[in-house]
Amino acid sequence: MDATPRPPLHPLRIDRDRLLRRIDELAAIGALPGGGVCRLALTDADRQGRDQVVAWMRELDLEVTVDRIGNVVGRRRGREESLDPVVTGSHIDTVRTGGPLDGNLGVLAGLEVVAALRDAGITTRRPLAVAFFTNEEGARFAPDMMGSGVQQGALDLDHCLKTVGIDGETVGDELWRIGYAGDATPGLRAHAYVELHIEQGPVLDREGITIGAVTGVQGISWTEVTLRGVSNHAGTTPMALRHDAGLVAAEIAVFLRRLALEIGPPMVATVGALTLRPNLVNVVANHAVLTLDLRHTDEATLQEAERRAFAEVAALAEREGVQVTTRRLARFEPVAFAEAIIGRVEGIAEAMGLSVRRMPSGAGHDAQMFAPHCPTGMIFVPSIDGISHNIRERTAPDDVVAGADVLLQLLLELAG
Amino acid sequence: MDATPRPPLHPLRIDRDRLLRRIDELAAIGALPGGGVCRLALTDADRQGRDQVVAWMRELDLEVTVDRIGNVVGRRRGREESLDPVVTGSHIDTVRTGGPLDGNLGVLAGLEVVAALRDAGITTRRPLAVAFFTNEEGARFAPDMMGSGVQQGALDLDHCLKTVGIDGETVGDELWRIGYAGDATPGLRAHAYVELHIEQGPVLDREGITIGAVTGVQGISWTEVTLRGVSNHAGTTPMALRHDAGLVAAEIAVFLRRLALEIGPPMVATVGALTLRPNLVNVVANHAVLTLDLRHTDEATLQEAERRAFAEVAALAEREGVQVTTRRLARFEPVAFAEAIIGRVEGIAEAMGLSVRRMPSGAGHDAQMFAPHCPTGMIFVPSIDGISHNIRERTAPDDVVAGADVLLQLLLELAG
Repeated sequence: MDATPRPPLHPLRIDRDRLLRRIDELAAIGALPGGGVCRLALTDADRQGRDQVVAWMRELDLEVTVDRIGNVVGRRRGREESLDPVVTGSHIDTVRTGGPLDGNLGVLAGLEVVAALRDAGITTRRPLAVAFFTNEEGARFAPDMMGSGVQQGALDLDHCLKTVGIDGETVGDELWRIGYAGDATPGLRAHAYVELHIEQGPVLDREGITIGAVTGVQGISWTEVTLRGVSNHAGTTPMALRHDAGLVAAEIAVFLRRLALEIGPPMVATVGALTLRPNLVNVVANHAVLTLDLRHTDEATLQEAERRAFAEVAALAEREGVQVTTRRLARFEPVAFAEAIIGRVEGIAEAMGLSVRRMPSGAGHDAQMFAPHCPTGMIFVPSIDGISHNIRERTAPDDVVAGADVLLQLLLELAG
Repeated sequence: MDATPRPPLHPLRIDRDRLLRRIDELAAIGALPGGGVCRLALTDADRQGRDQVVAWMRELDLEVTVDRIGNVVGRRRGREESLDPVVTGSHIDTVRTGGPLDGNLGVLAGLEVVAALRDAGITTRRPLAVAFFTNEEGARFAPDMMGSGVQQGALDLDHCLKTVGIDGETVGDELWRIGYAGDATPGLRAHAYVELHIEQGPVLDREGITIGAVTGVQGISWTEVTLRGVSNHAGTTPMALRHDAGLVAAEIAVFLRRLALEIGPPMVATVGALTLRPNLVNVVANHAVLTLDLRHTDEATLQEAERRAFAEVAALAEREGVQVTTRRLARFEPVAFAEAIIGRVEGIAEAMGLSVRRMPSGAGHDAQMFAPHCPTGMIFVPSIDGISHNIRERTAPDDVVAGADVLLQLLLELAG
């Protein structure tokens, strides 16, 4: 028996065809010849995409503001205009070989919710805002989540405007060039923030589940390990006299898999990069560089994983007589989303007859920038085969629609 | 009690200063600015080196012949000219960053033995021959041990003459260019073949032993393993759903070390080359290429090591759901030297008060081409720190001299 009173489902549903059509129309801008989409942040293709979304916002009578880092917010009036808005959104920039849904789905589903409300003649108590944030992907300018980071105070505006991209242009210059250097001061107080996104991983697809109630974003620890041994002839050097940097690198990679399995889900640990020198068949490697990527939703567990990994790196290197140096490449603490919102994503999905599970996000999202400031949550829908940042990124249309309908219900509840 | 009669040591010794001076003089040809020597096979530097050694041969009244693959043999008459000669020698070509002793020591020590015999007025019963063989290193033209291989029938002359080097020139053209395309048909019947060489490994140096009585040359098995997994997001892909080609590559490298330790010396096993794709910190590798270098002096054991390695590669790949293909890069059976000669190297060293141990050669040598055809052996002297194919290649002068004196005694015994 569940004693918690649950709001009943609203009978309103989004317009499937209109949502899928808008997704296709936006994906046509920057479309790649072989499929997929390329709209790197602040390029001409990004400008065209922005212009299209802003046009849709205006068609829906949203009040559009652009801030100095180029974030665009479309605001719909509420019955009590003095209240902070409920905000939804995501990003419309893509990686170089992106798909139609990463980011775009969250923005276009937000617009679809507004459109459905308008069609039904519903005005919520709180204002609603649909936002898209500049340079979430970080594929042209580092770091990623730049627009939401500046807006929510995690990143410095002036520093970001001066950031030079992979092609030598700066964020500030490119914002001016494409006409999205707005005059609003970044900052948006939200009553709550929710974001619909594709999972970008295989969990929902493998388990046949439609909705992910996202519990937070994993903490990330990236470390580069450099090992210096002694280069020796592979034929003439007995095993006992070796100082094989390549072997230690391999042992670290094997240990990291064991560590992840011992700690158990949601721990993930990866050695994605490993380079040997001289990298010859008959020479014991005297130099190895590898990266450790550790992620967990719990900061204490992530720290434990780091401790155990670093201790093992040191022990393995010492046993082989190899020198080790480490360099931190990145470190982000885990972000926890609001239990109230996680629970409502579950409750709404169940009430709609959709399968649902709680899960962390392995990737970073704009939502995590809001989490310290207001109740925040995310809704995931399945990525077929877990494929992401790839022209073969796909989600079943039924799942796209289901996610948007959960978003509609959630925004209705939050905005009253 | 040892029942085997041992020949007494001859009182003759080599001339230390003359040997060390010739080593320095030859090393001055092709000397590198920072130390070390570069006389790649059939270059102008190699020609200058050859001319110098041939001049020394003529000063010693040796009958010099050059065969069609450029091998040079300097022959000293014996008391019974109808008998096959006892042959010693090595090579004078070097790798790009070679040292003064690799190969050169065996040739110059052979000349020094002849000089010492001449000075003492000694004529052996059998003829003596000192040879240097074309392109032992294989650093400009593949394969290595080309001259001795052609001479002893393991390689085809015409094929080798057409071989194109790393700079686009052929062996045949370069032999003509430098004046070493001789007219003698390759082929040299030897009563026995012995070669003095630096160890090129750390064993003698580590153990403080002066003389290695070489038991044979290890068999070599080189295999390239290609692993094809699935590229996935390191943050969003749970461990249980991965097909990580990089992990399997690392597991193979770790297994190979364990295999070598389990089989025990002289087994050596090395993963010297390992390349991942896309080789990014946050992407599970979908592609890995690594090399397996397995060596043992016993063919059955080498085959056992191959069987176990390939079985483990297949099992590890299957467990991770990664596709595996293998390609054989090289395979040479072990070569066993003659027990009679190994025993005499030991006996002579002991009689001279030198420390000695039996050991296999981890590297290939011209001697192995003679082993199928006549009693063959090698004498090793220590490489300081085991450094080889490096401008820091060094051997203590006392050890150089000791090795040459053992060679002198051995040649005297064999030639009678």
